[in-house]
Amino acid sequence: MITAIKACIFDVFGTVVDWRTSVSRDLAAFTATKGITGIDWLKFSDAWRKQYRPSMDEVRSRRRDWTILDELHLESLVKLLGEFGVTGLSEADILHMSHAWRRLDPWPDSVPGLTRLKTRFIIAPCSNGNIALIVNMAKYAGLPWDCVLGAEPARAYKPDPEAYVASCRMLDLKPSQVLMVAAHNGDLRAAKAQGLGTVFVPRLTEHGPHQQIDVVPDPSCVDIVAVSFTELATKLGC
Amino acid sequence: MITAIKACIFDVFGTVVDWRTSVSRDLAAFTATKGITGIDWLKFSDAWRKQYRPSMDEVRSRRRDWTILDELHLESLVKLLGEFGVTGLSEADILHMSHAWRRLDPWPDSVPGLTRLKTRFIIAPCSNGNIALIVNMAKYAGLPWDCVLGAEPARAYKPDPEAYVASCRMLDLKPSQVLMVAAHNGDLRAAKAQGLGTVFVPRLTEHGPHQQIDVVPDPSCVDIVAVSFTELATKLGC
Repeated sequence: MITAIKACIFDVFGTVVDWRTSVSRDLAAFTATKGITGIDWLKFSDAWRKQYRPSMDEVRSRRRDWTILDELHLESLVKLLGEFGVTGLSEADILHMSHAWRRLDPWPDSVPGLTRLKTRFIIAPCSNGNIALIVNMAKYAGLPWDCVLGAEPARAYKPDPEAYVASCRMLDLKPSQVLMVAAHNGDLRAAKAQGLGTVFVPRLTEHGPHQQIDVVPDPSCVDIVAVSFTELATKLGC
Repeated sequence: MITAIKACIFDVFGTVVDWRTSVSRDLAAFTATKGITGIDWLKFSDAWRKQYRPSMDEVRSRRRDWTILDELHLESLVKLLGEFGVTGLSEADILHMSHAWRRLDPWPDSVPGLTRLKTRFIIAPCSNGNIALIVNMAKYAGLPWDCVLGAEPARAYKPDPEAYVASCRMLDLKPSQVLMVAAHNGDLRAAKAQGLGTVFVPRLTEHGPHQQIDVVPDPSCVDIVAVSFTELATKLGC
């Protein structure tokens, strides 16, 4: 099977980068410069992430026209700043904070693993992040993508089938020639249903030290398990 | 002006890569293995390139549904093989030959120049080539793009305004924050009309030793002239 693989595509938030630590630290540091204190930014980041799925579901259900993730993040942020009682920020400040998702640190194995995988495969994000978000993050984190696939060019949010199918089609590859890499069983289940190969890379602290979900792979939808991107590179002969 | 620039986007065929030499050499070498001789492959490549604009115009005019360039190339190739009297090739052979446009050599300054420009700017193709074509070419030629913009994600062929405007929008940049780099005045005229900055890099042998077009920049639409990508990198402080 591995000999037929031409591309590895990746979930990004949680799989490639550590959003929770990065967002909370970014917001804490920025708001401190504005004299804002006393907010639990880890709790804030978790609450922000909880808005992610429902905000995309508005688009997925066609109740709302196509909207990129940067805009959904901004709307959720404005709402949460109100709920957490954060005031005194300018529009430019809030826009800057909404782009915290463009400034996420990679897991330690992400860049070395991707760099090795890139020598043999096309590597691309298949994320719900829009192109500007993903490109700026790649510049920030040093992620060596070959191109940016996923939600924006596909005009579909995962786990909708079109997000995976269009990503393969844009590479002119059959789904069976593409591996989807994610730390989330749900993402891999949706990719597997479209015929992609699947790789589970556990990220046991994505949601903090007491994480209970996606701790183990679901054997019904996972082809390969690797503890890191570097182990994946080794398993794939890179 | 240069301090505001965040991204450089590039025409590819002719500007980054030498399509004429590469396509003709690729076809000659491949068909030789099939026992086909006596064809002037440079003439064939010129004829193939002449089909490029009319084939896209069918799509641009909406007489034809959106069709990627790989497919247009394949159709033109089939037609020209007939005209040149080339026979005895399998469907797989012809598909392989149509992908000659994925195997183009860069001009000598392209990779060193792009590598330097990438340290300071987002660099991306804004080409009429589809994503699979551009990504495979990048792997072949070592082109270090940050992402792939242009016709396929924009769903518009240059010189239609949307090809340029969508490329800026996908980067979340204003046109004034983006430089369009091309060896073709027509491309730059269309980009300039949408508010992008423009860079002319002459490629004096793109069409062979007797080239007459695009030998000098048109000052009405060109902001910066550089003789190479490395000179452009120097001019932009990279």
